[in-house]
Amino acid sequence: MRIALAQLNVHIGNFEGNVNKMLAAIATAKSQNADLICFSELATCGYPPRDFLEFPDFIARADQAVQTLAKAADGIAVVVGSPSVNPDAEGKDLYNSAFFLENGTIRQVTHKALLPTYDIFDEYRYFEPGRQFSVVEYKGKRIALTICEDIWNIHNENPLYTVCPLDELMPAKPDLVLNLSASPFDTGHAKRRLDILKANADRYNIPLVYVNHCGAQTELIFDGGSMIMGSDGQLRAQLPFFKEHIETYDIDRLVIEPPLEVVQIEDIHRMHDALILGIKDYFGKLGLKNAVVGLSGGIDSAVVAALAAEALGAKNIRGVLLPSQFSSDHSVNDARELAYNLGIQFDILPIEPIYDSVMNVLKAQFWGQQFGLAEENIQARIRGLLLMAMSNKFGPILLNTTNKSEMAVGYGTLYGDMCGGLSVIGDVYKTDVYRLATFMNSSKAAIPTHILTKPPSAELRPNQKDTDSLPDYEVLDKILYQYIENRTGPDELIHLGFEKELVEKVLRLVNTNEFKRYQAAPVLRVSQKAFGMGRRMPIVGKYLSSS
Amino acid sequence: MRIALAQLNVHIGNFEGNVNKMLAAIATAKSQNADLICFSELATCGYPPRDFLEFPDFIARADQAVQTLAKAADGIAVVVGSPSVNPDAEGKDLYNSAFFLENGTIRQVTHKALLPTYDIFDEYRYFEPGRQFSVVEYKGKRIALTICEDIWNIHNENPLYTVCPLDELMPAKPDLVLNLSASPFDTGHAKRRLDILKANADRYNIPLVYVNHCGAQTELIFDGGSMIMGSDGQLRAQLPFFKEHIETYDIDRLVIEPPLEVVQIEDIHRMHDALILGIKDYFGKLGLKNAVVGLSGGIDSAVVAALAAEALGAKNIRGVLLPSQFSSDHSVNDARELAYNLGIQFDILPIEPIYDSVMNVLKAQFWGQQFGLAEENIQARIRGLLLMAMSNKFGPILLNTTNKSEMAVGYGTLYGDMCGGLSVIGDVYKTDVYRLATFMNSSKAAIPTHILTKPPSAELRPNQKDTDSLPDYEVLDKILYQYIENRTGPDELIHLGFEKELVEKVLRLVNTNEFKRYQAAPVLRVSQKAFGMGRRMPIVGKYLSSS
Repeated sequence: MRIALAQLNVHIGNFEGNVNKMLAAIATAKSQNADLICFSELATCGYPPRDFLEFPDFIARADQAVQTLAKAADGIAVVVGSPSVNPDAEGKDLYNSAFFLENGTIRQVTHKALLPTYDIFDEYRYFEPGRQFSVVEYKGKRIALTICEDIWNIHNENPLYTVCPLDELMPAKPDLVLNLSASPFDTGHAKRRLDILKANADRYNIPLVYVNHCGAQTELIFDGGSMIMGSDGQLRAQLPFFKEHIETYDIDRLVIEPPLEVVQIEDIHRMHDALILGIKDYFGKLGLKNAVVGLSGGIDSAVVAALAAEALGAKNIRGVLLPSQFSSDHSVNDARELAYNLGIQFDILPIEPIYDSVMNVLKAQFWGQQFGLAEENIQARIRGLLLMAMSNKFGPILLNTTNKSEMAVGYGTLYGDMCGGLSVIGDVYKTDVYRLATFMNSSKAAIPTHILTKPPSAELRPNQKDTDSLPDYEVLDKILYQYIENRTGPDELIHLGFEKELVEKVLRLVNTNEFKRYQAAPVLRVSQKAFGMGRRMPIVGKYLSSS
Repeated sequence: MRIALAQLNVHIGNFEGNVNKMLAAIATAKSQNADLICFSELATCGYPPRDFLEFPDFIARADQAVQTLAKAADGIAVVVGSPSVNPDAEGKDLYNSAFFLENGTIRQVTHKALLPTYDIFDEYRYFEPGRQFSVVEYKGKRIALTICEDIWNIHNENPLYTVCPLDELMPAKPDLVLNLSASPFDTGHAKRRLDILKANADRYNIPLVYVNHCGAQTELIFDGGSMIMGSDGQLRAQLPFFKEHIETYDIDRLVIEPPLEVVQIEDIHRMHDALILGIKDYFGKLGLKNAVVGLSGGIDSAVVAALAAEALGAKNIRGVLLPSQFSSDHSVNDARELAYNLGIQFDILPIEPIYDSVMNVLKAQFWGQQFGLAEENIQARIRGLLLMAMSNKFGPILLNTTNKSEMAVGYGTLYGDMCGGLSVIGDVYKTDVYRLATFMNSSKAAIPTHILTKPPSAELRPNQKDTDSLPDYEVLDKILYQYIENRTGPDELIHLGFEKELVEKVLRLVNTNEFKRYQAAPVLRVSQKAFGMGRRMPIVGKYLSSS
């Protein structure tokens, strides 16, 4: 049997665009003599559709899309993910379904049984879990249809679930597992995914065809990487990462061919590619082309500008230098050099005259007060205001340059350097920002060496350094990773060898700055625990928040 | 049996404070000769603890709290909500449990069976549903322990669930249902709650004791209103709304006494009381006292200032007037009159000099451009900057004054008038803002009549009116309510009699302004569908978003 894996970049709610893309893919698959084409999870409506699923009109349009695709399922079977209405009065209104379309009709609908409801996932908010398991017979093959998480409870060992769909399906003696996925990227995901497919093949002695979504939807990035795993647990086909692709394989021939070697890709390389796709799709899916970035001369804005130039093209990026009386000469020079290297246009807007006029308006109120945090924030907010003015006047979207370490401890000014439509590196710890810079410089040395070597500073008062108020990033990032990614508690952190006072300070900073993150820009997610929709915290909580 | 209903205002993660409060309540209950005291759902850790539940250290502290309360369960039984660890490898790690404590030990633990996972609720993210049902025998009574949602599936008619806990419990012949709740307020909630308790009493012919959480946790407000419902479906006891309270009732005597009449309270009155509690607790739980509000002379900021003065005390509120060249005389006069009436101090900070210095810095870039949206936003952002400067320098938290209608259609400037730590009226439609003003003026005429009668204007350009770009609020709010609260689709809206063009425009505005709401302040929730954690939308979606 010849199966086409269609790893497409669909767009949430863009039914017309998605269906047209899928019709074109069906035509391609036919031209490749495919017997069957498989799309990804919820491909009609895009993933994740979130609360649009609660709108009956939205569901009606998804149904319409399935009908249109069914008509095209002529001489080829089409397997596509789409929401379907639960006909029973009991339980949630919808299922997350895989439609098997053949001869112009819906031949079978299979519902996702394991509904991820953790981190960024909210599937149980919308869907009733499928409880019936059966295979589809097609051209002499018995196909087990599964959706994403359904194959992630191998041995029933995943503590989140009490059902193992493939255990249920095995009595029906399937020849093949099809899996429709929308599995969000993080740097470790490709490895875990490969392991889980191998483990399924090993356990059930069955080949698996895995079709993943490719593309970014605001903060979530889907890396494609669709594949076919032989029943021997060896990789037989691998679609590219971070790219749309359609490819047809003769599954019976494939399994007797020698296996592919798994290509090893460095985490920082994957992270880079993911961020590029994240930027590209944010702009593309909003119908926008241009970005503006504030260039401080520091590493964060340098990396964001370099990523943006790569993703959108240098000519579509506008840098803005916003020096103050506290900016060092090297900041301006480094930023200028960066802009030259990247080939992006830039403006220089000195903020001092505005700062003076603000202080003048506040003269009576601030009388007798010393220079402090308020004055530092005023500078950051003037910068935010000017960047947004450029954005509003000329249309480019402001990219936010806050890194994950800063976001974690609240080292940044709300409505100031926290402005922006998209946070590019808000899920990248400061130490990884350096690694990203080095990685990008290895192919084209655009980020000036001095930016990589000088000590980080916000330059909001004379001779300020990040280390004045924060520990070294090497230490800070380790504590943050333990607390944020691993939910390690204070006692355990101290047990791991970190100083008690430091642990308490860092955890307090993380927990008391929830209010800032609440109003932060959406963050491109590249880790297993990014700030944003996947990490939900109370603001007025009082946990590890006092000294 | 004498039962104490302890409707307390607990604080998320503040285990020490919560336990001390509960120990004091136990002492009070003992002094009232109670046989049993009942606290609300997850009272040890506060509700909703959100992702803190994923931190083992957090759960250990909740366990410790239960242990401490168990020791105090001496001569009195204590029923308290707390998370408990699921001992099985399969399923989620935790249960949402009710602990029955007696004689210094944990006598029984009952798990919540129906886990709300919609709107603001994420319970299936953390908890495994309880699947075992049994009663607790205590002093000759068979008590059915239930938690919140467990009693909301009467007749098994709630389509979200497939189990009806009380149906399961009835074979054990309970004499009494205890329900531990944390049911978030909205203006219609009290009525629905009363109806559901009545329906349970009618169906099972059993009295119900309902203990609700009281207090606000950032955006969520819990209104108390704990009660005892007789088996005849008549109200027998009612604790106050929006106030902590402990009261002991002899349940056997109560049921033979004449029933209470249900006190009718107007929606706008409830909304007012909820907002007051919401403001009070946001500040109280963050350990803060003072607020700053920008006073534009318009209705929104007037209502927010009046609410803040009532909640925090007039002396703790600082108003700031931020007139520009476009501000009408009446704006300044109206704002000044409001401040006098409320008895709050105020500053006047004219923004024109700063605006001029901004335009001067942008002179080269903006050369030849016409005055437009960018310039309007600059004014709004200068105001935001000055308000935040006052906040940062002197400590008061900036209250946001955006109403729900504006938030819905994106009529507001990100990092400008959308600044603030808490959005007070972000869930109040503009037409209801007027109703709130009238309601508040009925007890003390603080809001000048002119503010109530003049047409709304942002005053960002000469003679601007809201109706220049938006339909009348009377019409707009109706469309918004249908779309946001009822998920009514475009065809249905047109069928309801709204103009096609207007419907398309409004829905497009709502859907394309998701990016602004993403970065908005947390909104005090008073409706069944507030912006924020209960409404989760993609930003780059393309659904009803183009013309």
